[in-house]
Amino acid sequence: MLTNRKEIQIEWGDCDPFGIVFFPRYFEYFDACTNALFHRALGITKAEMLNRYEIAGIPLVQASCNFLVPSSFGDVVIVESCVTNWGTSSFAVQHKLFRGETLAVEGHEKRVWTVRVAGPGSKPKSAAIPREIIEKFA
Amino acid sequence: MLTNRKEIQIEWGDCDPFGIVFFPRYFEYFDACTNALFHRALGITKAEMLNRYEIAGIPLVQASCNFLVPSSFGDVVIVESCVTNWGTSSFAVQHKLFRGETLAVEGHEKRVWTVRVAGPGSKPKSAAIPREIIEKFA
Amino acid sequence: MLTNRKEIQIEWGDCDPFGIVFFPRYFEYFDACTNALFHRALGITKAEMLNRYEIAGIPLVQASCNFLVPSSFGDVVIVESCVTNWGTSSFAVQHKLFRGETLAVEGHEKRVWTVRVAGPGSKPKSAAIPREIIEKFA
Amino acid sequence: MLTNRKEIQIEWGDCDPFGIVFFPRYFEYFDACTNALFHRALGITKAEMLNRYEIAGIPLVQASCNFLVPSSFGDVVIVESCVTNWGTSSFAVQHKLFRGETLAVEGHEKRVWTVRVAGPGSKPKSAAIPREIIEKFA
Repeated sequence: MLTNRKEIQIEWGDCDPFGIVFFPRYFEYFDACTNALFHRALGITKAEMLNRYEIAGIPLVQASCNFLVPSSFGDVVIVESCVTNWGTSSFAVQHKLFRGETLAVEGHEKRVWTVRVAGPGSKPKSAAIPREIIEKFA
Repeated sequence: MLTNRKEIQIEWGDCDPFGIVFFPRYFEYFDACTNALFHRALGITKAEMLNRYEIAGIPLVQASCNFLVPSSFGDVVIVESCVTNWGTSSFAVQHKLFRGETLAVEGHEKRVWTVRVAGPGSKPKSAAIPREIIEKFA
Repeated sequence: MLTNRKEIQIEWGDCDPFGIVFFPRYFEYFDACTNALFHRALGITKAEMLNRYEIAGIPLVQASCNFLVPSSFGDVVIVESCVTNWGTSSFAVQHKLFRGETLAVEGHEKRVWTVRVAGPGSKPKSAAIPREIIEKFA
Repeated sequence: MLTNRKEIQIEWGDCDPFGIVFFPRYFEYFDACTNALFHRALGITKAEMLNRYEIAGIPLVQASCNFLVPSSFGDVVIVESCVTNWGTSSFAVQHKLFRGETLAVEGHEKRVWTVRVAGPGSKPKSAAIPREIIEKFA
């Protein structure tokens, strides 16, 4: 299973009056990590991915985090991200954020492969994930 | 069960290139809603709450959201928040975000009643939630 | 000169480890205040404004703030916003953020009236601000 | 004059419904760039800097940006940062953000060297910038 590692520097503006990362920032970090994971797997940017596969995006239907250990300004953390399940049109992403050797935050996302639909007023809709996408994560 | 309703205006800067709310913003909204819920229940600000009960705060150990319907810039949404479970030192908060009559996002938080500990280098630790707090949410 | 007043509640997640508002949040507040000012002047939402006047938006070319007095979580502040100058295609907006009677932050924005241009690959460009817009702020 | 270069990846969540960076994010980038500049000049983290020099921080009294060219999700930009003026207790920082060879955003900050004051209820106050700090930027 392809796993991407991304280094994140905790910035002053990510932290709250306790001096620790304000928890919604972890969801922002993990969103960027999912984009980085796809970038690594496909070898193209998200913009190119949207064009090539005629998708509107990979929006979330569910996101969750377990906060085990806080991080603070100046910490440099590592996030390991991988797809843990491929459904027909949805898939699950797991993120593990490490402070040194310590697992500090664990995140899960459920996302949907969403295609554009032609015609005025049409809304994007879910579609089957192409086999070639899934193979690139093997 | 005490339920607080908070109106939130979706701002331009909350939305992503799809034109819909960037999902980590919902966790920010819900954090503010939990603070508003406590404010309503206790009749004091969070700053006053931290002083009176000698707590460091009510940090999260878990947060999750189901995203059912997207919202966009200009929408005014309502969030209904309540505590759904009181443990000894932890408690669960539920948030339901409505666009008009439609349930658009559902969020859950698990938080811990965390007290300050005297002495240099001491870390805050969990403690039993005072009975009078729980009674004010009845 | 039309002035709009907007109340803003300082949230926990807006504040940094000093316990005061992280300064980029003031620019977010003021962006929302400019949108609220136009909403009040025109009586329509920004989405409706974009459609009616066939504009792409009113992007900034310059923004500045003077930070006089800090604000903290729990403060409720008032922002008074007005257009201080109308050029041909650009205009200046002033924001004054008050904590009680005290002027706490003063902000200025220079924005450009920007229209959509038909044709693939065409970029939005600046255009003369319609007279009826300016009249609605008188 | 010491200049620090910092690479910044524009993330999806930094961009607005136009698809370009929401302008307050540039102020966040530049705040991180000032911290990186001090880190490089002093060879210690900001946390260590706060301890060694017994300062509360280097808060802003003024910030401004000129937005020349927009950036979008997927862009990798470079920010060059330097101190352009040292006053007695305040100093000016300049940031130039480049997209490739193009100067895209120019930012300026005025910050104050602010020390902690002992005693309950005492507020931090400005103080003379130590000579050794200034020398490390030469």
